[in-house]
Amino acid sequence: MEALPQQCLAFRGTLLHTPGAPGSVQVLTEHLIVVDDQGFIVHLAPASDNDSAGLQAHGVDPAAVRVLGPLQFLLPGFIDAHAHAPQYQYCGVGTDLPLIGDAGWLSTYAFPTEASLADEAHARAVYDACVKRLLRLGTTTANYFTTIHTGACKVLADVLLQAGQRAVLGKVCMDQHSPDFYTDASAEESLQGALEVVQYIKSLNCSRLLPAVIPRFIPTCSQQLLAGLGQMAAQHGLRIHSHISESLDQVQFTQQLHPSSSSSSSGSSDAQVYDAAGLLTAKSIFAHGTQLMQEDMELMAERGSAVAHCPLSNFYFGDGLFDVSKALSMGLKVGLGTDIAGGYSPSMLQAQRMAVVNSHALKAAALMYGTWRAHEQQQQETDEQQQQQQQTSKRQRLEQQQQQQQQQPSDRGPEQLQQAEGPTAGSKRAASSISNPAVAAAAAAHMLTWEDALWLATAGGAAALSLQETVSHFAVGMAFDALLIDAGLPGGPFDVLQAAGEEVKQPLLLLEQFLNCGDDRNIAEVYVQGRRCV
Amino acid sequence: MEALPQQCLAFRGTLLHTPGAPGSVQVLTEHLIVVDDQGFIVHLAPASDNDSAGLQAHGVDPAAVRVLGPLQFLLPGFIDAHAHAPQYQYCGVGTDLPLIGDAGWLSTYAFPTEASLADEAHARAVYDACVKRLLRLGTTTANYFTTIHTGACKVLADVLLQAGQRAVLGKVCMDQHSPDFYTDASAEESLQGALEVVQYIKSLNCSRLLPAVIPRFIPTCSQQLLAGLGQMAAQHGLRIHSHISESLDQVQFTQQLHPSSSSSSSGSSDAQVYDAAGLLTAKSIFAHGTQLMQEDMELMAERGSAVAHCPLSNFYFGDGLFDVSKALSMGLKVGLGTDIAGGYSPSMLQAQRMAVVNSHALKAAALMYGTWRAHEQQQQETDEQQQQQQQTSKRQRLEQQQQQQQQQPSDRGPEQLQQAEGPTAGSKRAASSISNPAVAAAAAAHMLTWEDALWLATAGGAAALSLQETVSHFAVGMAFDALLIDAGLPGGPFDVLQAAGEEVKQPLLLLEQFLNCGDDRNIAEVYVQGRRCV
Repeated sequence: MEALPQQCLAFRGTLLHTPGAPGSVQVLTEHLIVVDDQGFIVHLAPASDNDSAGLQAHGVDPAAVRVLGPLQFLLPGFIDAHAHAPQYQYCGVGTDLPLIGDAGWLSTYAFPTEASLADEAHARAVYDACVKRLLRLGTTTANYFTTIHTGACKVLADVLLQAGQRAVLGKVCMDQHSPDFYTDASAEESLQGALEVVQYIKSLNCSRLLPAVIPRFIPTCSQQLLAGLGQMAAQHGLRIHSHISESLDQVQFTQQLHPSSSSSSSGSSDAQVYDAAGLLTAKSIFAHGTQLMQEDMELMAERGSAVAHCPLSNFYFGDGLFDVSKALSMGLKVGLGTDIAGGYSPSMLQAQRMAVVNSHALKAAALMYGTWRAHEQQQQETDEQQQQQQQTSKRQRLEQQQQQQQQQPSDRGPEQLQQAEGPTAGSKRAASSISNPAVAAAAAAHMLTWEDALWLATAGGAAALSLQETVSHFAVGMAFDALLIDAGLPGGPFDVLQAAGEEVKQPLLLLEQFLNCGDDRNIAEVYVQGRRCV
Repeated sequence: MEALPQQCLAFRGTLLHTPGAPGSVQVLTEHLIVVDDQGFIVHLAPASDNDSAGLQAHGVDPAAVRVLGPLQFLLPGFIDAHAHAPQYQYCGVGTDLPLIGDAGWLSTYAFPTEASLADEAHARAVYDACVKRLLRLGTTTANYFTTIHTGACKVLADVLLQAGQRAVLGKVCMDQHSPDFYTDASAEESLQGALEVVQYIKSLNCSRLLPAVIPRFIPTCSQQLLAGLGQMAAQHGLRIHSHISESLDQVQFTQQLHPSSSSSSSGSSDAQVYDAAGLLTAKSIFAHGTQLMQEDMELMAERGSAVAHCPLSNFYFGDGLFDVSKALSMGLKVGLGTDIAGGYSPSMLQAQRMAVVNSHALKAAALMYGTWRAHEQQQQETDEQQQQQQQTSKRQRLEQQQQQQQQQPSDRGPEQLQQAEGPTAGSKRAASSISNPAVAAAAAAHMLTWEDALWLATAGGAAALSLQETVSHFAVGMAFDALLIDAGLPGGPFDVLQAAGEEVKQPLLLLEQFLNCGDDRNIAEVYVQGRRCV
């Protein structure tokens, strides 16, 4: 059923990936990578003049090795951890409303658009355009929200089978607080449809297509539906995909519908409700999480669940900024999502840029509101100390103050937004050279670099989707989901200029420039499990 | 000297622009626009079958009228209110350091790169690539920072003359606290060089090229240099271009160098120092302003000065978020800048997107830190009131609470970051349908829409550069600085999909999709004063 790669592949040149912890990119120059006819990597080592025998042993004609140019490199394919495929219809427009309410974004844009996919021919046109666009943008794996229609869900599976993208998908389930024209008739019917789609996906017998249960979000699902989906996921070993604590309105809606037994709280959190229904598992991924409280994040970490961080969409709908550094330091899995069309850009390059911007916004917010006054006070005390004893070096003082700030979390914001417990991700490098201690502390607590963002878009997403044994970096045994990047494209989106005296562009400079300024024009070829899709 | 347009131009179709207040886009469908051979608009009116005589009177052959397709439209050219042309060499890389300090961004990247433009052949290569790239991205006017070299500044003027871009430029002046390898030898020499560049630009006799004085930023300029540049600007009627209150480190640096006479303050602000030197005028534009205090903004508004808002760069270096809504409501002029290469993207499309994101980050920060607890308290009180008297409508309550929040500015942040006095720009539409009053208040105070961002990138920038009589929108007498946008480009960066039952795409939907998802591929043609540059 699944088209197999016609032949083995071999490339010689530079490979860049993030196989370790967030924040560092491994540079493999002059390496030889060989991919077998099933699409898996069978050889990865420094290239040498004696590779011919090894190549032939893998069934590769040495003359067929692709030699990459000096401005070309291989990168792991991007993983979009949360995307609404049917909403691709209006991707790029309609970002002017709040999420919830009669005149909100869901009622005005999302629900009517999704309802139109009852027409399977229309569904095919939309899904075909969406999947092709995402592949063109280098998204080799996507975690798709769909619609409530079993027919349209099967259409998406068919489209994916043909186009070659790796994907997690299933039927969206919603049986309450949804518009009359777009709702499952009952919990039973919703569950039955979900199972039908799971079975259809399994029947395709394609390892790239992974079934999931998808409760839309808590207010739109009855207790019976949530519990039924929890049971279904457990019984069939399914992934779970939903939204969590996305906006202030949404959190309040959940609290109204799920009163808490505790008198100290106004209602249950999304995480608590999902957990009670058996939906908070090590195969669960939830979009957004901007309003997650400390105890929600602890519970999610304990269960091994993941957050799909959707920074662009969160700016519009989130009423807060998700703190990736804090989440990672607490042991949560974190991937990166476009959230099309709540996020207007289907590009994972844009998602990476927005993840960095989001972290800087957190830093700025902490400086503006949270730690500014504490810093001023601290600075005064420090200045007085300094006048008394000048022998303490600047460096020691910086470290001392950073520690002080970490030990005194701000009491000004809601609990989930206090200082992270310690520096995470790639923030140490920058913090070490900042002269202002308040800035240093805020940067250390929040800042992500472009290297961190690339990690989120590849390794982070793979772990969040329980795919870390299959994709995310280059290693023998992994599937070859890869992008051939050409940074030096004539007429491309950026200029690679030589600085005075510079002879060879360093791969990391090319990668940074591509990630910041590049676009699909630089993505010359896209492979999913060895099959060329673009 | 300046190449004149070879012939008159005429287009028939849709024109979109923002001639009024921020937040609204005027849609002119089926209009005829005629441009004379000097590049100025001589006719703009609804098209009719009787246009032939009028066209001939303007010297246009009716058969030569360009008829735009249904997915094409004209847009005013973008105005980049702050860009460092020499830094284009490393545009897209090097965003990992703080601004100031021995290991900071200026010392590591900016100063060495700028110094390399002492070589005029190298300067020509860099400036040629930069100007071509910006024109390709639809930037018809740019306000350029350069280097300290008079020779390289003249090269930039020559490049601009040939390429056709409209620009403000001059010599960068810096005579202290700069590296030995990159500093003016003395204030006198700096002033002499600045004047030489002004006179060279004037000698080119090209109305598109406008000279400016450019003190780099306060710490790098002696009192003598600042005062001399103020005098030069007054004497020759020059524009003034610099940075202001960009980061916490930079503000502290200024305060150290310029102690205040007042005992309540630790030192003078940038705005006070510029004002004392005669550099705060109605022809002054200053980049950033993230750390401007209330009284600085009042002073700037009084003088008629402008801020070049550089949202992308500010996220990296600003240590705070500039509040465009507040600045506009206080009467400041505000344009939009890329700040290449502090901002890694040379695209004004990206700058517009980041302006909207910045406003959402301000909203989120206010919700996270500033107004959240005040809201919770208020909500409790409201709930109690509600239990007593159910007759107050939800709508009335919302308005009442919004007023309360506006009357009770938060006391948690530094002064410049408190609530704006009232709703500004395009925020009312969104706020009116939000059910959560804290969200509504934060959105009303801060939120910018894509329409606002387009206004900033065209009309706002024109006013900020004192060019509002020449460019910014389509009207008889204005220069034809325009982009021909093709939203329906095959193989372009986004898909224009028809929704079920939709026959014709509304121009505003096409514009929104282009501004959110489009790129230079959609910019089919670029005109500056009637001359086609791309």
